[in-house]
Amino acid sequence: MSLTVVGSIAFDAVETESGKRDRLLGGAAVHFSLASSFLAETRVVGPVGDDFGDEEYAVLHNRGVVTDDVEHVPGGKTFFWAGRYERDVNIRHTLQTDLNVFETFEPKLSQASQDADVLFLANIQPDLQRAVREQCTGARFVALDTMNLWIDIARESLVKTIAGVDCLIVNDGEAKQLTDEPNLVRAAQKIMEMGPRVVVIKFGEYGANMYTKDGVFGIPAYPTADVVDPTGAGDTFAGGFVGYIAAHADEEITDELLRRAMAYGTALASFNVEAFGTERMQTLTADEVNERVAELQRVTVFDASPVPLRG
Amino acid sequence: MSLTVVGSIAFDAVETESGKRDRLLGGAAVHFSLASSFLAETRVVGPVGDDFGDEEYAVLHNRGVVTDDVEHVPGGKTFFWAGRYERDVNIRHTLQTDLNVFETFEPKLSQASQDADVLFLANIQPDLQRAVREQCTGARFVALDTMNLWIDIARESLVKTIAGVDCLIVNDGEAKQLTDEPNLVRAAQKIMEMGPRVVVIKFGEYGANMYTKDGVFGIPAYPTADVVDPTGAGDTFAGGFVGYIAAHADEEITDELLRRAMAYGTALASFNVEAFGTERMQTLTADEVNERVAELQRVTVFDASPVPLRG
Repeated sequence: MSLTVVGSIAFDAVETESGKRDRLLGGAAVHFSLASSFLAETRVVGPVGDDFGDEEYAVLHNRGVVTDDVEHVPGGKTFFWAGRYERDVNIRHTLQTDLNVFETFEPKLSQASQDADVLFLANIQPDLQRAVREQCTGARFVALDTMNLWIDIARESLVKTIAGVDCLIVNDGEAKQLTDEPNLVRAAQKIMEMGPRVVVIKFGEYGANMYTKDGVFGIPAYPTADVVDPTGAGDTFAGGFVGYIAAHADEEITDELLRRAMAYGTALASFNVEAFGTERMQTLTADEVNERVAELQRVTVFDASPVPLRG
Repeated sequence: MSLTVVGSIAFDAVETESGKRDRLLGGAAVHFSLASSFLAETRVVGPVGDDFGDEEYAVLHNRGVVTDDVEHVPGGKTFFWAGRYERDVNIRHTLQTDLNVFETFEPKLSQASQDADVLFLANIQPDLQRAVREQCTGARFVALDTMNLWIDIARESLVKTIAGVDCLIVNDGEAKQLTDEPNLVRAAQKIMEMGPRVVVIKFGEYGANMYTKDGVFGIPAYPTADVVDPTGAGDTFAGGFVGYIAAHADEEITDELLRRAMAYGTALASFNVEAFGTERMQTLTADEVNERVAELQRVTVFDASPVPLRG
């Protein structure tokens, strides 16, 4: 049941059509763990500076997230990102990125974090991801995120890192860039040939596909009329997906289980975008999550009984 | 059971990574009717020139399409379109468009075509679409396609035309442009306020959503590793969708029926892209269609039973 996530902890400044926030708790590891906390006890590994205080810890602790491996860098400042979304929230402009303590981050995992049953390597430099993966020798499922930057400047290391994980979670642009293959089915096949047995490709507002040896699973995004802040939706999705797998440690990781995991990831991501930063995730209840998964099924269900056709 | 489609009949020259064809039977009404012919007898209304001969008619007749209202313009040439797709087939370049006989097309419907139970108005000038719609007084379901050009230059007429139909089928860019609303759920709501009770928004390789008063239905595209020529996929989708409704004239048009129609549209579109022009649709069998709908359900199904969550 134990789940460890390694990645960024951040303050975000975000501007969308719905408003503006100067200082929001954010970062991939935070968004991930708030989602995964609904499913499994989650240990966060990531660096913070002096500006990261009780209020921020409380958000994580209120959801039962274990912060023993949050590394406080004395004299440092927490990773800061500022961005603006256009009225069409699919268009994002990064205004500022201050890596701060994240620049020299070298993940240090306690024994408890190393003993994780399931591991999520959020988007950090692939050498670091691989070093963490190698410390978690007992993990029965390891999932990896990455970004276009590492595909550009550290491809060789990234490919080695991908070879050592069970699952890659990327968006469609990253999948195409990584494999130099514009067709997503072929791109996913190429990624599976690199090592992972599960490939998840996210399409933002259109949903996500999962590729395994058993075939393809496709799920639309939950239709949301009010997208306030899409920041962290992908990490929240990953938190629900990977958290679901961690929560079912006693079950074999079948295609059927992975599909249920995709549904929980999709449902959780749909909540995250309803408010700024982690605001919605802080008020979310277990019943709301299960209800949204049920709604998501109502969105997707159809009767496929064959009908008489004109041959 | 009777279905009429009004729209373009064309010759296409297409270049994709898979090869090049100089003269393919194409056009919205052709792609539509080859798909709908699997479900309901379909009457095509559209203009052709002297270059449209027995070979082209045979493709339609072999699928039982009724061509009585195909208008031969003596001395004219059939609409011609040439395009090139990049290796990423989502990127299309139009190389040439010769409207030819399509430029002065004024649809003339025989009584049999006017008596259609179901009508599809493929993408033509909205005044013409409206004139056709008004001739088909007995139609119990009318669906409309359009394009960015008419939103740009004939918005007022288009909005009037949309007000008179039951269903609008557009892609996501067109839906956003028509409503000036970047959120698709809101865009669909705005379109429903214009008149239609059914809105279908297509996302190309990501699938399609359908919006009705009963909620949203989302279906992924059938995952296809070999996209040879995407030309006509949208019209083929419409042919399956609208054809399904025409085929079930004895049933009330419920959300459940419309969802099955979406699945048939999606399945048929996935065949169309497997070869150039109409080549794949010419060899397609009824069993293959029903089998693909069943496969599409296997792609989308998941168990949404609630699980114990950490509250």
